[in-house]
Amino acid sequence: MELSRRRLLGTVGAAGAAGLVVGGAGGALGVAAAQDDGPEALTTLGSTAVAFRPARAKHQAGITTPLQAKGHLVAFDLTPGSGRKEAAALLRRWSRTAEELMAGHAPHADTGVALDAGPSSLTVTFGFGHGFFDRTGLTKRRPTQLDPLPDFSADALDPRRSNGDLWIQIGADDALVAFHALRALQKEAAGTARLRWQMNGFNRTPGATAQPMTARNLMGQVDGTNNPKPSDPDFDERIFVGRDADQQWMRGGSYAVVRRIRMLLDEWEKQPLAKQEKVIGRRKSNGAPLTGGSETTPMRLDANGPDGLPVIPADAHARVAAPESNQGAAMLRRPFSFHDGFRDDGAPDAGLLFVCWQADPLRAFTQIQRKLDRGDALSVFLRHEASGLYAVPPAAEAGDYVGRPLLEG
Amino acid sequence: MELSRRRLLGTVGAAGAAGLVVGGAGGALGVAAAQDDGPEALTTLGSTAVAFRPARAKHQAGITTPLQAKGHLVAFDLTPGSGRKEAAALLRRWSRTAEELMAGHAPHADTGVALDAGPSSLTVTFGFGHGFFDRTGLTKRRPTQLDPLPDFSADALDPRRSNGDLWIQIGADDALVAFHALRALQKEAAGTARLRWQMNGFNRTPGATAQPMTARNLMGQVDGTNNPKPSDPDFDERIFVGRDADQQWMRGGSYAVVRRIRMLLDEWEKQPLAKQEKVIGRRKSNGAPLTGGSETTPMRLDANGPDGLPVIPADAHARVAAPESNQGAAMLRRPFSFHDGFRDDGAPDAGLLFVCWQADPLRAFTQIQRKLDRGDALSVFLRHEASGLYAVPPAAEAGDYVGRPLLEG
Ligand code: HEM
Ligand code: HEM
Repeated sequence: MELSRRRLLGTVGAAGAAGLVVGGAGGALGVAAAQDDGPEALTTLGSTAVAFRPARAKHQAGITTPLQAKGHLVAFDLTPGSGRKEAAALLRRWSRTAEELMAGHAPHADTGVALDAGPSSLTVTFGFGHGFFDRTGLTKRRPTQLDPLPDFSADALDPRRSNGDLWIQIGADDALVAFHALRALQKEAAGTARLRWQMNGFNRTPGATAQPMTARNLMGQVDGTNNPKPSDPDFDERIFVGRDADQQWMRGGSYAVVRRIRMLLDEWEKQPLAKQEKVIGRRKSNGAPLTGGSETTPMRLDANGPDGLPVIPADAHARVAAPESNQGAAMLRRPFSFHDGFRDDGAPDAGLLFVCWQADPLRAFTQIQRKLDRGDALSVFLRHEASGLYAVPPAAEAGDYVGRPLLEG
Repeated sequence: MELSRRRLLGTVGAAGAAGLVVGGAGGALGVAAAQDDGPEALTTLGSTAVAFRPARAKHQAGITTPLQAKGHLVAFDLTPGSGRKEAAALLRRWSRTAEELMAGHAPHADTGVALDAGPSSLTVTFGFGHGFFDRTGLTKRRPTQLDPLPDFSADALDPRRSNGDLWIQIGADDALVAFHALRALQKEAAGTARLRWQMNGFNRTPGATAQPMTARNLMGQVDGTNNPKPSDPDFDERIFVGRDADQQWMRGGSYAVVRRIRMLLDEWEKQPLAKQEKVIGRRKSNGAPLTGGSETTPMRLDANGPDGLPVIPADAHARVAAPESNQGAAMLRRPFSFHDGFRDDGAPDAGLLFVCWQADPLRAFTQIQRKLDRGDALSVFLRHEASGLYAVPPAAEAGDYVGRPLLEG
């Protein structure tokens, strides 16, 4: 009990965009590990640190980082009187704290909530909303990509839980590590920005499945299969802002679209399996396309069944959302599930904190959601309840803070 | 991806009260484990199964089971027209499903949400509230231990989130496994019982710390140190109902007191460390008593400082709550933290889903809370917002369901 995890980890630091394993059975912590006899000893789950300033990648952590078990999304509005100078000071404080926390260090005047725990793959990702640029006198530097999303017919958006000047995504494999980061960052906003909305999400805990597997959502579907992969030749171009960007401060950054999508689970769960699979176009058991094969087999969108109808129905979610149906449009979906108890009508207040990443929302989220809004068999089981769009700048360079090229450039 | 965890686990079954490790590096899953290269491969976190019918212990799982990372508390009321017969049928359905789920099997007509995952230490624990006995015509068999708790001066209880005829505690180390169980059980209540309230909680994820450590709560304190230990000679007598019970159907069972206790974290976090430590009587860093030693060193309640005052102040929470101050009273605290976002005033809606277990609430929770209510330095930082008291019968015997001796005895 006397051994401080933090103290040990503090000497190691963090490196590697996708997560560096600190210690482990053969590493510096081998001695401590050998003394343990319970199943709860520190594993890579706790010891993995994600770099705040990745050595090679130019983008912030939390975009291509593997899904974490726990997530907090939080938006702030600058308080009246806070302008560009105050925002710059806040981003400087936030960046310093995020870097410390992600490396497993406790910040100044700490609450102690994350003591004992390793960094647990903590990531902190910062973004700017539309209003930020007005309030900081930076309207000229606002990218057109931040133009408000169009209205969709299925929208039932709550403005109090939408948008916001500043947005933070926190992810970690330990709930106390995540909460600790949320409080530390909230406290540093005091006087400069006021909390606008905050949402909690989760994913599978690493180690709960036999292999690193594609996630499942609360409808029970394998979700994330046909995401663009970092190894795809056009991955960077689709997800990250390129060198020809109008707003050079966003080069290497990305745009995040956030939607709180409630699932009508009572209705959904009444559908027979065959119907559920037609709604998506994939098998529920393993995510394979209805046209056969395994999870990673490409869908055969042109295959017809004995009845002459397409095997993957015309309104199947995966067909309507596919690049083939959207002039090649694609984005990186990196959601958390949410469950905020039950509503007064007894239905679960649960669904997907849908977070997707793209170089250009107009040619990705907006293009695809327009299609889904008209012809997606899944949409009758969904309610879009909140929405946000944020410009997520590249990672901070050495000695710098996130957003400096915008705020002081 | 094709390998079904469930199918593998299905052949193994579950045993052992405190959790059986299914597979692992040297076990039946050694082959699968050897094929994994990512840090997320199935670990004991996922493979641990807790027995629904423990081989030796007579009490339900979820009482002495190590804390899980995720928890759901849920209460139901019997619907008008549902009596003893319907309640018995419900408990029979629930018991069968709980047993299947805890062993890692999917129930009939499954949502698929927990597919791929191991049992992940899932526990499902059933209890009866005061009203249950009226509605089932079993008033004569209601234990006096279920008499309503007295009012405490600090109570600000919301009746809609308190009490209930039936109570279930669900715990698991994976959030989807826990949610899956919650939905399955909720669905089986349809027609017989209506959801009354439901709360979500969490604890540290196993593997996030170097050793199995005492939990921390959202105030940052080490919480659980001076809990009675199963190895204590009087543990069973304090926590579980003995053979001399008036209501023999409760023999081997326990009483659960549930309190939603919100923490006034904004006020708490403003207190300097020295003040925070005096409020509890223990060090925040490692939980050691202010009178010295390590976490497990006994408090020296009679030690005075150079100023002649007690080192552990007269109103320190750990002193006021200690058996020494309560005629030996003690209970097993097994809480989850909660965080339901932020309130309209900007304060976190966060704290402790305090769950404690005892053979007799009057001589444990009530005795201690009466003391705390009057003289606890911690209480100014707390709000008791909801309350429940449940009779948790012993585990089901072979071929039986939980509560049969009450319902059909
Ligand atoms: C709660 C809401 C949603 C659920 C439950 C859901 C579920 C799924 C599932 C199960 C798949 C198939 C597996 C996969 O490739 O990941 C999928 C694919 C996809 N979804 Fe969704 N989805 C939701 C909302 C959205 C939204 C709002 C968008 C974008 C506007 C979207 C875009 C996509 C895309 C682009 C694919 C991949 C299609 C392909 O290339 O095959 N989804 N979704
Ligand atoms: C949010 C509310 C609470 C917090 C944050 C809290 C925190 C703590 C802490 C940090 C300790 C010292 C470490 C330990 O032995 O676990 C402790 C001890 C204890 N608490 Fe609480 N507590 C809370 C509510 C309660 C309530 C409502 C009761 C019972 C009515 C209670 C009963 C006890 C007992 C019996 C001990 C052990 C005292 C001893 O034997 O040393 N606590 N609590």
